[in-house]
Amino acid sequence: MKVFTTSFTLASATRTEISDVTPLVTAAIGPFGVSTGLALINTLHTTCALFINEFQSALVEDLQALIERLVPDRNGYRHDDPRVSDCERGNARAHLRAALLGRTVALGVNHGDLTLGQFQSVIFAELDGPRRREISIQVIGE
Amino acid sequence: MKVFTTSFTLASATRTEISDVTPLVTAAIGPFGVSTGLALINTLHTTCALFINEFQSALVEDLQALIERLVPDRNGYRHDDPRVSDCERGNARAHLRAALLGRTVALGVNHGDLTLGQFQSVIFAELDGPRRREISIQVIGE
Amino acid sequence: MKVFTTSFTLASATRTEISDVTPLVTAAIGPFGVSTGLALINTLHTTCALFINEFQSALVEDLQALIERLVPDRNGYRHDDPRVSDCERGNARAHLRAALLGRTVALGVNHGDLTLGQFQSVIFAELDGPRRREISIQVIGE
Repeated sequence: MKVFTTSFTLASATRTEISDVTPLVTAAIGPFGVSTGLALINTLHTTCALFINEFQSALVEDLQALIERLVPDRNGYRHDDPRVSDCERGNARAHLRAALLGRTVALGVNHGDLTLGQFQSVIFAELDGPRRREISIQVIGE
Repeated sequence: MKVFTTSFTLASATRTEISDVTPLVTAAIGPFGVSTGLALINTLHTTCALFINEFQSALVEDLQALIERLVPDRNGYRHDDPRVSDCERGNARAHLRAALLGRTVALGVNHGDLTLGQFQSVIFAELDGPRRREISIQVIGE
Repeated sequence: MKVFTTSFTLASATRTEISDVTPLVTAAIGPFGVSTGLALINTLHTTCALFINEFQSALVEDLQALIERLVPDRNGYRHDDPRVSDCERGNARAHLRAALLGRTVALGVNHGDLTLGQFQSVIFAELDGPRRREISIQVIGE
């Protein structure tokens, strides 16, 4: 059994951008040749999210509407107040939305494939773009 | 150190059904005889959830009320609109509730037992039943 | 490759208390001398949370305001009703807030360090204090 570590980057063009990164994850871990094990995928940032769901465009719109309803763009956030915070981007909403969606995906690897169900994708949500992001991966197995 | 993979299935009788699957997880990993390691438990579906909390019937009702309040059954979801989506079940609510509750449990294994606290259970929430679901498990340890 | 298990405890002085436990995690796993692998960090309790975000005091206030808005202190919770529940603390809010924030952190270990981004901290949220809590850690690697 061995442990492998890698990463990939992802750039966004707009403020909120939700994308299916399953092919990027698969491509990143493929060269390790792990048949059975597990893969841990983490964003290295605090204003984006990583999770598993169905990647369908209509559902992605619903998901975006949900987090915008639960965490409005502006809501008197202290983090966005220049009198008490040195944050220049006014991005409290992105931190809080990330807290609700999660930022880690942990999956099994079986027969060389990620143990994803038929309708499951690894989804990355940029919540404070445009930015370039780094996603860290560890794979343990044999 | 070795890695083991297994799964179990779970059937529901109603639309929303929240159950304590700790005994099913324990039974599934027991035969591997791992004394120290970790266990990764994932649903292979996008309209159900898997998480850890106290399994008490009154609290389960509160949890169900919470997700129904945050994600109403009908809310103009695009995923449920036959004009833009080919989803036949109108189950956007289930996808969105799953996004809030999570769908992965990762636990240590210590002295052969899952590292669960006194009041912790592994809880499975069927959010779009009745259906049969598959839960995937990886165990790494020695 | 080896697997190590440890834990640390944390005491709170007030009901809700959000703290940066990154130094405690780092100190707990340091002695294992793992260079490459992964670390799994779990609370053993159901009324507190463990997650990753930026630890900035203004943002912590925003996060607390968010969970108090989504899960009010009192909301007719069944868990808090002595007629149907034997819970003496009336802490349904803490269980439900924990369900939204999560209670597991899984991180890579690379060159002996946790794979945390520049603004990422491991954050522990006591939601039903004051209490003493135990946090369980597994490290797998070489």
